Amino acid sequence: MSDEQYSDYTVPGLAQENGHEIAGLLQTRLHALNDLQLALKHVHWNVTGPHFIAVHEMLDPQVEVVRGFVDEAAERIATLGGSPSGRTGELVARRHWEDYPLGKADSLVHLAELDKVYTGVIEDHREVLAKAGQVDPITEDMLIGQVKELELFQWFIRSHLERTGS
Amino acid sequence: MSDEQYSDYTVPGLAQENGHEIAGLLQTRLHALNDLQLALKHVHWNVTGPHFIAVHEMLDPQVEVVRGFVDEAAERIATLGGSPSGRTGELVARRHWEDYPLGKADSLVHLAELDKVYTGVIEDHREVLAKAGQVDPITEDMLIGQVKELELFQWFIRSHLERTGS
Amino acid sequence: MSDEQYSDYTVPGLAQENGHEIAGLLQTRLHALNDLQLALKHVHWNVTGPHFIAVHEMLDPQVEVVRGFVDEAAERIATLGGSPSGRTGELVARRHWEDYPLGKADSLVHLAELDKVYTGVIEDHREVLAKAGQVDPITEDMLIGQVKELELFQWFIRSHLERTGS
Amino acid sequence: MSDEQYSDYTVPGLAQENGHEIAGLLQTRLHALNDLQLALKHVHWNVTGPHFIAVHEMLDPQVEVVRGFVDEAAERIATLGGSPSGRTGELVARRHWEDYPLGKADSLVHLAELDKVYTGVIEDHREVLAKAGQVDPITEDMLIGQVKELELFQWFIRSHLERTGS
Amino acid sequence: MSDEQYSDYTVPGLAQENGHEIAGLLQTRLHALNDLQLALKHVHWNVTGPHFIAVHEMLDPQVEVVRGFVDEAAERIATLGGSPSGRTGELVARRHWEDYPLGKADSLVHLAELDKVYTGVIEDHREVLAKAGQVDPITEDMLIGQVKELELFQWFIRSHLERTGS
Amino acid sequence: MSDEQYSDYTVPGLAQENGHEIAGLLQTRLHALNDLQLALKHVHWNVTGPHFIAVHEMLDPQVEVVRGFVDEAAERIATLGGSPSGRTGELVARRHWEDYPLGKADSLVHLAELDKVYTGVIEDHREVLAKAGQVDPITEDMLIGQVKELELFQWFIRSHLERTGS
Amino acid sequence: MSDEQYSDYTVPGLAQENGHEIAGLLQTRLHALNDLQLALKHVHWNVTGPHFIAVHEMLDPQVEVVRGFVDEAAERIATLGGSPSGRTGELVARRHWEDYPLGKADSLVHLAELDKVYTGVIEDHREVLAKAGQVDPITEDMLIGQVKELELFQWFIRSHLERTGS
Amino acid sequence: MSDEQYSDYTVPGLAQENGHEIAGLLQTRLHALNDLQLALKHVHWNVTGPHFIAVHEMLDPQVEVVRGFVDEAAERIATLGGSPSGRTGELVARRHWEDYPLGKADSLVHLAELDKVYTGVIEDHREVLAKAGQVDPITEDMLIGQVKELELFQWFIRSHLERTGS
Amino acid sequence: MSDEQYSDYTVPGLAQENGHEIAGLLQTRLHALNDLQLALKHVHWNVTGPHFIAVHEMLDPQVEVVRGFVDEAAERIATLGGSPSGRTGELVARRHWEDYPLGKADSLVHLAELDKVYTGVIEDHREVLAKAGQVDPITEDMLIGQVKELELFQWFIRSHLERTGS
Amino acid sequence: MSDEQYSDYTVPGLAQENGHEIAGLLQTRLHALNDLQLALKHVHWNVTGPHFIAVHEMLDPQVEVVRGFVDEAAERIATLGGSPSGRTGELVARRHWEDYPLGKADSLVHLAELDKVYTGVIEDHREVLAKAGQVDPITEDMLIGQVKELELFQWFIRSHLERTGS
Amino acid sequence: MSDEQYSDYTVPGLAQENGHEIAGLLQTRLHALNDLQLALKHVHWNVTGPHFIAVHEMLDPQVEVVRGFVDEAAERIATLGGSPSGRTGELVARRHWEDYPLGKADSLVHLAELDKVYTGVIEDHREVLAKAGQVDPITEDMLIGQVKELELFQWFIRSHLERTGS
Amino acid sequence: MSDEQYSDYTVPGLAQENGHEIAGLLQTRLHALNDLQLALKHVHWNVTGPHFIAVHEMLDPQVEVVRGFVDEAAERIATLGGSPSGRTGELVARRHWEDYPLGKADSLVHLAELDKVYTGVIEDHREVLAKAGQVDPITEDMLIGQVKELELFQWFIRSHLERTGS
Repeated sequence: MSDEQYSDYTVPGLAQENGHEIAGLLQTRLHALNDLQLALKHVHWNVTGPHFIAVHEMLDPQVEVVRGFVDEAAERIATLGGSPSGRTGELVARRHWEDYPLGKADSLVHLAELDKVYTGVIEDHREVLAKAGQVDPITEDMLIGQVKELELFQWFIRSHLERTGS
Repeated sequence: MSDEQYSDYTVPGLAQENGHEIAGLLQTRLHALNDLQLALKHVHWNVTGPHFIAVHEMLDPQVEVVRGFVDEAAERIATLGGSPSGRTGELVARRHWEDYPLGKADSLVHLAELDKVYTGVIEDHREVLAKAGQVDPITEDMLIGQVKELELFQWFIRSHLERTGS
Repeated sequence: MSDEQYSDYTVPGLAQENGHEIAGLLQTRLHALNDLQLALKHVHWNVTGPHFIAVHEMLDPQVEVVRGFVDEAAERIATLGGSPSGRTGELVARRHWEDYPLGKADSLVHLAELDKVYTGVIEDHREVLAKAGQVDPITEDMLIGQVKELELFQWFIRSHLERTGS
Repeated sequence: MSDEQYSDYTVPGLAQENGHEIAGLLQTRLHALNDLQLALKHVHWNVTGPHFIAVHEMLDPQVEVVRGFVDEAAERIATLGGSPSGRTGELVARRHWEDYPLGKADSLVHLAELDKVYTGVIEDHREVLAKAGQVDPITEDMLIGQVKELELFQWFIRSHLERTGS
Repeated sequence: MSDEQYSDYTVPGLAQENGHEIAGLLQTRLHALNDLQLALKHVHWNVTGPHFIAVHEMLDPQVEVVRGFVDEAAERIATLGGSPSGRTGELVARRHWEDYPLGKADSLVHLAELDKVYTGVIEDHREVLAKAGQVDPITEDMLIGQVKELELFQWFIRSHLERTGS
Repeated sequence: MSDEQYSDYTVPGLAQENGHEIAGLLQTRLHALNDLQLALKHVHWNVTGPHFIAVHEMLDPQVEVVRGFVDEAAERIATLGGSPSGRTGELVARRHWEDYPLGKADSLVHLAELDKVYTGVIEDHREVLAKAGQVDPITEDMLIGQVKELELFQWFIRSHLERTGS
Repeated sequence: MSDEQYSDYTVPGLAQENGHEIAGLLQTRLHALNDLQLALKHVHWNVTGPHFIAVHEMLDPQVEVVRGFVDEAAERIATLGGSPSGRTGELVARRHWEDYPLGKADSLVHLAELDKVYTGVIEDHREVLAKAGQVDPITEDMLIGQVKELELFQWFIRSHLERTGS
Repeated sequence: MSDEQYSDYTVPGLAQENGHEIAGLLQTRLHALNDLQLALKHVHWNVTGPHFIAVHEMLDPQVEVVRGFVDEAAERIATLGGSPSGRTGELVARRHWEDYPLGKADSLVHLAELDKVYTGVIEDHREVLAKAGQVDPITEDMLIGQVKELELFQWFIRSHLERTGS
Repeated sequence: MSDEQYSDYTVPGLAQENGHEIAGLLQTRLHALNDLQLALKHVHWNVTGPHFIAVHEMLDPQVEVVRGFVDEAAERIATLGGSPSGRTGELVARRHWEDYPLGKADSLVHLAELDKVYTGVIEDHREVLAKAGQVDPITEDMLIGQVKELELFQWFIRSHLERTGS
Repeated sequence: MSDEQYSDYTVPGLAQENGHEIAGLLQTRLHALNDLQLALKHVHWNVTGPHFIAVHEMLDPQVEVVRGFVDEAAERIATLGGSPSGRTGELVARRHWEDYPLGKADSLVHLAELDKVYTGVIEDHREVLAKAGQVDPITEDMLIGQVKELELFQWFIRSHLERTGS
Repeated sequence: MSDEQYSDYTVPGLAQENGHEIAGLLQTRLHALNDLQLALKHVHWNVTGPHFIAVHEMLDPQVEVVRGFVDEAAERIATLGGSPSGRTGELVARRHWEDYPLGKADSLVHLAELDKVYTGVIEDHREVLAKAGQVDPITEDMLIGQVKELELFQWFIRSHLERTGS
Repeated sequence: MSDEQYSDYTVPGLAQENGHEIAGLLQTRLHALNDLQLALKHVHWNVTGPHFIAVHEMLDPQVEVVRGFVDEAAERIATLGGSPSGRTGELVARRHWEDYPLGKADSLVHLAELDKVYTGVIEDHREVLAKAGQVDPITEDMLIGQVKELELFQWFIRSHLERTGS
């Protein structure tokens, strides 16, 4: 979000400074989700090995859902009076993680890496939703809905990696 | 594309070095298209003024189509034996243009800026398709198809900006 | 309608001369509707200015509906025993109006011009439906249905042009 | 809600007096939502000026969503053991606001007026959801979901009215 | 309809005073239809007894159709040059009937009441269509189409109430 | 229609004896339409010769539409207070025409026969709609709508039989 | 089936006299199914009383399925070399049952009557399928499929009539 | 859930013992929902009497929704690191209620019984959601969503049983 | 099936004692199919390892089909005059097999177990269809149709387990 | 089917040698169906003359259905423990008929030829279904279903060729 | 195209004079395609004789596709900076062919005439695509795509007229 | 293609001998594509091992697309004036490759074999498209489109076989 660009309103029933502060927190989530959709597509193209088609196809619905979350988060920022930023340069400058590390690699190697990516995104989401919940139950609810799906996707990935006794 | 990660094949009927070279050229197009889809969404969220809803809604189908081009270009790179990169850090490091410059702004101001963005993407696309056409008509044809749609979208944008006599 | 080409039948329950006379009146409506669908497409391509996308998209459903009316009127002529003509040369030779006058122009200038086009088509439709109603309630009802939609489309156009006090 | 008409049940796990009290609060929201859907349709018919078609079409999906909220709120009242009222006379008698003030008017004038309408509805919704949340998380969650959409629709409207520097 | 707000046009081929007069008559129909859709929903929520689900589900398609008639009537008023009013306060002030009288009640009791509501709406519709038919066959045809469906819905309701010998 | 079984109502705004008289007239149309749908299916199964598949497939959509008219006419009878009869024995006893005369036969022979069938049905429909129009515009409008489609279907059939000079 | 109109073929692998004999048996089933679809529609229009809408709507899917059986039986007759008859006069002349006896009546009275109708159709179907099974397993299988659905529909009807202890 | 089979993870941001404890609570909900879907189908088959078809059809959408809740609860258990159990033997061994008591019975008798079933499921759901809400807002939100639908379905059932004065 | 609850009818053309005996046999199939759908869902949630997503997704369409068989078998029991039981307690008390033995396990281990489950269900189905075929071809045909699909699903599972030479 | 490649299983309840023998018989049907779908497409491309479009379009749905039969037969072979062969060289080596004899030809000439092709396929199908029926009712039922459609398609073709008296 | 109305841009990467020249060439194609869609509809209404329905229905999909080409060509002209003209008077003034010559006529006579029409349109299209290909591969590719479909449609028509030996 | 059966036309704008020569080249592609669709189905049925379902399902969409190419190539041959052959005997006699070599085998073994099949088809396609491009850009463009998809499908297959470092 372009910090200097707050509108002179926020949602009804909320103090303007509270609304703008939440918008600021959501901007970090917007960058994370944008990076996640791009990383998922990147893996979609670069998985190899005998599980190729199964993993290749599993990731596309995840991309679709995450892109929906990107839009939802950005429009919530705008609704709160902020100016959501979807710019790549800004994303890279402000993120606290590195580029997704793998190129072509076996699907299980990619899934182990994606497992870490999801852990990072979800932990940060849970932190922001706890903060948002103190002033705005609507933003909190939106993030709860997103976390639910992200955790389910992570379970898909973890299930591939789990080794059970039998 | 992770340059070091070429497979030991390319498409049948093409010399491997030719196939890999074209894959390299396509990687620049992949970064450009990825940045374009993100810029279009960014504008989708940040347009203001009396034309808000019309422009807001015009851009989403463009995002959908450009995302399809991203996928098509990336899978062509992989088909040619390369490893397509959808990483944001790499994108920002290698692009020869800046972040989209505007935050919240009137729709016509945004459209004037997007007009420039389209001009840049299309000119580069036309250059690469000319080069690709010398060795691989399939890649050439894919890029012709993309340019056709990109030029149509640019016409939508230019039509808003055009001032005719009457 | 090729006047010399009446079949030796008309619809049951109608005198053959009455049926053929109504078919002749409908041929004027067929030319008018055919010219209208072409004019609407012409404007669809030539509007410019800040309302471009909104007006461009508003016109396509009108084209679809008017094309349906063209088909309905032509098949009614045939049903009544006539030979409906969709020929451009004949259309131009027999119409009592000129080519649509504008090329590229601002959307409001086009809408003001289309308002006049609609007035012409509707007035003629109302005249023919009154005449048809004296002998054939089926043709009358078809034209009433067409006028209803044409007047609604004209209201869309007029609403853009209306300046209300507030 | 016809106050005298409470059933002798409420939802399992809730004290009956609590359930009926929340039903009473929801009845105010039902009147507000019913008036909102009617006001949105009223504006849908009465906007004029160069933005006619864009604003006319933007409002219909809002009407659809708000009608869904009407049904959801009414059936929650009944589920809690109340008798939901959708009667216009009662609505007018109990509301604390006036009829929507404008007839035909330019679209931006209408949007400025609708902005105020939305502010009123949302503020009241937020108050009731806070109260409901103390005894019934299900009703609270339903209202959070409604507020989220209402605030998004208000953002659409506000974006038309906002004047940004550029 | 806001009486003072006639446009300076009506549909082509009609005298302006005739068009505006019909618009005025249609406004009474618009209020009646708006009240009808709300009453039908009200009953949808308040029916009880062993026929609950059958009657509850029968009414929703009626609501959908009547809402379509509301829109059709309102846009016809506007097309004729009037300013259609969907305001609840005005509706209540101008109607010649009372609020729907029942809250929670057995489905057959509600159906007997709705039967009366339909009789009122249909009788008034038939009167206005007869008047409109003298100057504007298009409005007449629209009302005929509405009456046809309203009478069919009333038959549904009457069939529940009818006691046949066998 | 079972003549003895009139309800003690008819549609609002119509004298009960008028409503019941129209219901009686419609019963003749119901028998005719029921016989028509069965004859069309009969031909669908019995056409032979080189045009088999084209004619076989042309008739099914006609069956579908005519079945819709059967339902519409029957429910109008009931709406007017009558008891619509769909009984085959009664149909055969009261009709003034014979069974469809052909079994297996060449498609053009069948079409020539169907042409006569349609002429009979349409002439009777036109007579009844003229009578109905004197007291009930709703029934009249329903029959006009049916005649329009029946005449179109007859045109399909006649077009196969017509021999033009060229 | 017009008995005199057998083709000079039957299905491959079957003696011609066997094929034609089965076609003859199927013609009785065709008349029964045709009468059944008409009786079901007749009841659809004539049910009254508090279960009106539930029974009215339950019968339409039965009509649809039985109409499909009519078509299937008729085309099997033709496939076997016969000429299927869908003529009402012939149907009435050859059936061994009377017209459906009721006009307007309470839904449960109608269902009790339909129960008997189904018993008759199913018993005859089971007899013919047993005979057909001795020479043609394809016709047998078709009739088994029809009986399965007819028995299910009869169960629907019987369930309304059954009085269980509790 | 097979208690011994916890994975060595839970969702990010939650202590593993907390995650596993919630998974354990959810297993009781999974058994209850599984038993509910089977009981609803059982009633679907065994209702009799004059309301058969209305109640038979009302229950299928409830089955569909409850089956969706089964899946949602089971996958949440797995996401939290548990091993969801859908085994019937285990279900019967661990539940604290008896088999659904009725076989064939009149629909109102079944509905009275189902009313009790719903009360049991909802009360337990509300208890677990309160506990879950102390550590995991995502599980809490999922259960709130389920309770909302379950309470609505119970209202459907209760409305059949309610006797109102009129 | 509650054995004491036979209706006083069975399908037409069948002796009542035969119909009720088949209903009794089908009840064993109903329990088996109900247990199968629950076991398939159980495996759907508990597969782990590198084939997770492929096997997870393969099982859901099997669940859907088996649930359809459950409904078909239960409604056939009712049609034959029985009272189908979908109760879990009864299922567990009467089955001759144990709970599905595995919790979380590798997909191939689960598939080997499911192979055995399918063998059991199919063998029993084939036995019952042979018995039913002696008196009721309709029930026989229904079970043949079910076996066909169950064997196909088993082939899917066996193909994963098969080790071919190459 | 590669004869040497039987799996060490067949469907439950069948002796392995029986299952494998039926698989062997089905392989002849698989080759016949595969050749049929290719012949139908061949004719689809090569019909000429005034019935071109009608016959061209009639054949495509037949191709679709026959392709479905190919798949069904092949997967039944595999289910029975065989290895279905779809290889063209093997097909040509083992078939007992010649290539379809015609290139471009008038549609009626093609239909007369296809009539013979269908006779051959159906006769062989009927023989195999009789044999299969002695040990495996599931395979028998599958082939009955295929024969039913193939005979219907042949009737379509024969109807074009039939010359009836009238 | 209104020649005087070129915009001051063309597509990126093309010299403006080249872009405008191609736009001029495309205008001739736009007139030809517009006349073609109207001629195809004209024939759709005027075919007679035993092939009526087959040819009548064959032409409508061709109309749909050609109307799509009209739109595609016109928007390409606008994209290149021209002002596409869809005006009938201009079309007639500039075309180098006459009105379609036939009224009502036998279908084969019409098809022979349409064959010539298609030859003319395709030859001109091929000329323009060759010229366009020298400067703009995007326009060339669009015309290649159109020619492919037009040639396929002509083959449909020619196949009706072809007389093959057999 | 039956070489002796050229029509006396080819597409407009092409010399007849050129058109017929290209048709001849395309016939080799038609045989190759027909053999490919059959080989893909053959593998679809014969894959075994732990990747069964993933590979089994991946191949069906490839079959669908290749069948579309078969139709497209055949209809292009006919459009160019040739007589496309889809006959298996001719296919086997003229092909320069052997039958697909494997029966039941592990999925990776099959994929390695299919990789070779695709290489063969694509190399030949590229050769023919280069030749066709010298005289007919339409045929060239069709083959480019086909190669694009075939290469993408080969990439799917190769990705399974690729072993990457990580």
